[in-house]
Amino acid sequence: MQSPLIKKLIDAFCCLPGVGPKSAQRMAYHLLERNREGGEQLSESLMAAMNGVQHCSRCRDFTEDKTCQLCLSGSRDKSLLCVVESPVDVFAIEATGGYKGTYFVLMGHLSPLDGIGPEDIGLDHLKSLVELEKPTEIILATNSTVEGEATAHFIAEMFKNSGISLSRLASGVPIGGELEYIDGGTLIQSLSGRRPYQS
Amino acid sequence: MQSPLIKKLIDAFCCLPGVGPKSAQRMAYHLLERNREGGEQLSESLMAAMNGVQHCSRCRDFTEDKTCQLCLSGSRDKSLLCVVESPVDVFAIEATGGYKGTYFVLMGHLSPLDGIGPEDIGLDHLKSLVELEKPTEIILATNSTVEGEATAHFIAEMFKNSGISLSRLASGVPIGGELEYIDGGTLIQSLSGRRPYQS
Repeated sequence: MQSPLIKKLIDAFCCLPGVGPKSAQRMAYHLLERNREGGEQLSESLMAAMNGVQHCSRCRDFTEDKTCQLCLSGSRDKSLLCVVESPVDVFAIEATGGYKGTYFVLMGHLSPLDGIGPEDIGLDHLKSLVELEKPTEIILATNSTVEGEATAHFIAEMFKNSGISLSRLASGVPIGGELEYIDGGTLIQSLSGRRPYQS
Repeated sequence: MQSPLIKKLIDAFCCLPGVGPKSAQRMAYHLLERNREGGEQLSESLMAAMNGVQHCSRCRDFTEDKTCQLCLSGSRDKSLLCVVESPVDVFAIEATGGYKGTYFVLMGHLSPLDGIGPEDIGLDHLKSLVELEKPTEIILATNSTVEGEATAHFIAEMFKNSGISLSRLASGVPIGGELEYIDGGTLIQSLSGRRPYQS
């Protein structure tokens, strides 16, 4: 006989990705038995983030202000615009420290079967942004999946006569990867995209 | 550049068991991108449970009332008392539907190295409960681990001259288990605990 409050908490945990009824139960009992303070803090952080986090008016990334810190920063190169699918992609690219341009976050990819069209991923917004800022290059950094490729293709078509150079992230063997364990599709890409050897 | 609210939420998720920084990030972005309602609900359920769930005055199980529904129920056999380590154990035994006695939840096990002594697992409370209710049998259903065995032994010593019969859960081959894959310790237990064949 589980208390209704515990039952409700276990159900609520199930909304997290990768969490089923068994892990949800473990999480609920762990917090109740050993870390009530952590549970309260999680509750407060959740509420604050769910209510406070919105989309940046320029790049659509998550922010708690009207425009995100990255877009407001004066040190970014506005001639370079990187289009990604999701805020985690911005985070991953920023973590490398090797990119100094700006971003545009689609918050998804084109998926006609799910009813996700160009407006849902903010392509009208992207168009006016490009007209306003006039970048010299747009990097299409959507995922290397079928939907990501289709989305990149659609965006490339949008800007093909604009004079802006369009690029796509390189596909190939990951650094440290062994050819033996790499799938055929990637191997073909890395062969056809081979570069002159530089010592 | 992650918003401070998102950073705080990711840190807060790390307090859950089995959740590291990477899964925490995935959870935070999943809720923000796809399920803000679920996130708010989780926040509310967490706060309600952390503040509302306490220990039953009789069995120490979690409950939101003074005494839990199971202890208040008139249909349970009070001559049988099952001592378990944690509320999840009560839940697991109740889920079988095969036990009609009452419970006592230690909320842990003896662990002198961690400074967890008899009072911390409510053994004084257990003693007065046994004196009050006078069960005819106490089932020592602590885990089959070193600490669980030590705790069972300690409780058995407490009641050895009380005339109450003491029992321990059977150890052996799990139903559906194959001998080939069972560890030696369990196999020895199941050999020494062998029963007359009943067809």
